[in-house]
Amino acid sequence: MKVPKHIGIIPDGNRRWAEGQGLTKEMGYDKGLDPGLELFRLCKEQGIEEVSYYGFTMDNTKRPSQQTRAFTDACIKAVKMLAEEDASLLVLGNTDSPMFPKELLPFTKRKALGKGTLKVNFLVNYGWQWDLGHLTKNEDGIKTNYYGGLKSNDVSRIDLIIRWGGRRRLSGFLPAQSVYADFYVVDEYWPDFKPQHLYDALDWYRLQDITLGG
Amino acid sequence: MKVPKHIGIIPDGNRRWAEGQGLTKEMGYDKGLDPGLELFRLCKEQGIEEVSYYGFTMDNTKRPSQQTRAFTDACIKAVKMLAEEDASLLVLGNTDSPMFPKELLPFTKRKALGKGTLKVNFLVNYGWQWDLGHLTKNEDGIKTNYYGGLKSNDVSRIDLIIRWGGRRRLSGFLPAQSVYADFYVVDEYWPDFKPQHLYDALDWYRLQDITLGG
Repeated sequence: MKVPKHIGIIPDGNRRWAEGQGLTKEMGYDKGLDPGLELFRLCKEQGIEEVSYYGFTMDNTKRPSQQTRAFTDACIKAVKMLAEEDASLLVLGNTDSPMFPKELLPFTKRKALGKGTLKVNFLVNYGWQWDLGHLTKNEDGIKTNYYGGLKSNDVSRIDLIIRWGGRRRLSGFLPAQSVYADFYVVDEYWPDFKPQHLYDALDWYRLQDITLGG
Repeated sequence: MKVPKHIGIIPDGNRRWAEGQGLTKEMGYDKGLDPGLELFRLCKEQGIEEVSYYGFTMDNTKRPSQQTRAFTDACIKAVKMLAEEDASLLVLGNTDSPMFPKELLPFTKRKALGKGTLKVNFLVNYGWQWDLGHLTKNEDGIKTNYYGGLKSNDVSRIDLIIRWGGRRRLSGFLPAQSVYADFYVVDEYWPDFKPQHLYDALDWYRLQDITLGG
């Protein structure tokens, strides 16, 4: 049975979920913590070898400061929760910026925790241009040269990306690793995560004809 | 009304279409030519400013030589058809390889043809690693450094990608320009192209909330 080795997780919809509950937007992020841990455990059960979580991006930090603080705090808590599990954990993002939380600096070198059986990459203050080595940019952010190496060189090719919250785009998630990833969208918001979402995505993935361009 | 400025086209399913018709696989490619031209004209009508077509990739050329010859010929014909239109045309791909058709070398510098109103990028013998400047690779093709500039520096950010043939992945299509693209999948095969596919994709795009990470 075909199981993806590496799953990318885009846990979107926290703000929309909060609004739907009559809460303010920033109150949605904490509700994403338990789903993140539950998903990790389910992936381990399913024999998945690597999981990449999209925490937040450099672009995201341009949002209102209350939201930025809330999702940063949620990411700190999430990494600390995962550090209690059998994870080989790496936090990946731009540590040269003040938006990178100091609490997570110890995790920016991969560390085997517990039995370290599942490789986890958690993106914090990540940027695709930063990753691709795009240090300077012009008006449209694309037409300049890229220099230097891939910052995410310890993250392998992704087989399956699951995005919650209905949107059908990568939003800058690991572009080099995502080139051949099959993309599965869950319409429900991330705080409404159910194990069945993962099972449905895995069932769907099994039906895909993986060619890698061949 | 929100119209995407730049549309990416992944015209997949030619081989499956041919098999469904009782033909051999390589016979499907020629049936993609008229749809490509029709789509170009519809995009012009709709006020779209730029279209990128996924012709073939360096990986694709590892397929049986009969197929490789057939899709290469189809791409040559397609570019020549588009050269008769009001297009500002660029063929983009690795010209250092023998798989790049000599007939298309004159198009590897952007050229305004006719009234040159619509910018067209046509990928021929393209590779995402080639594009990102990844000249040497290790076992898994990802973990090495990238050097040099973005080869596709004359291609702008893509707003909407439409893929025919039901698959939900980029397959290496312009990773840097696709980071924020909304991804629309048509289950029908590319030779079965209908204008309604484009209209449906444009209607769907209008409903998307474009945030670019903000």
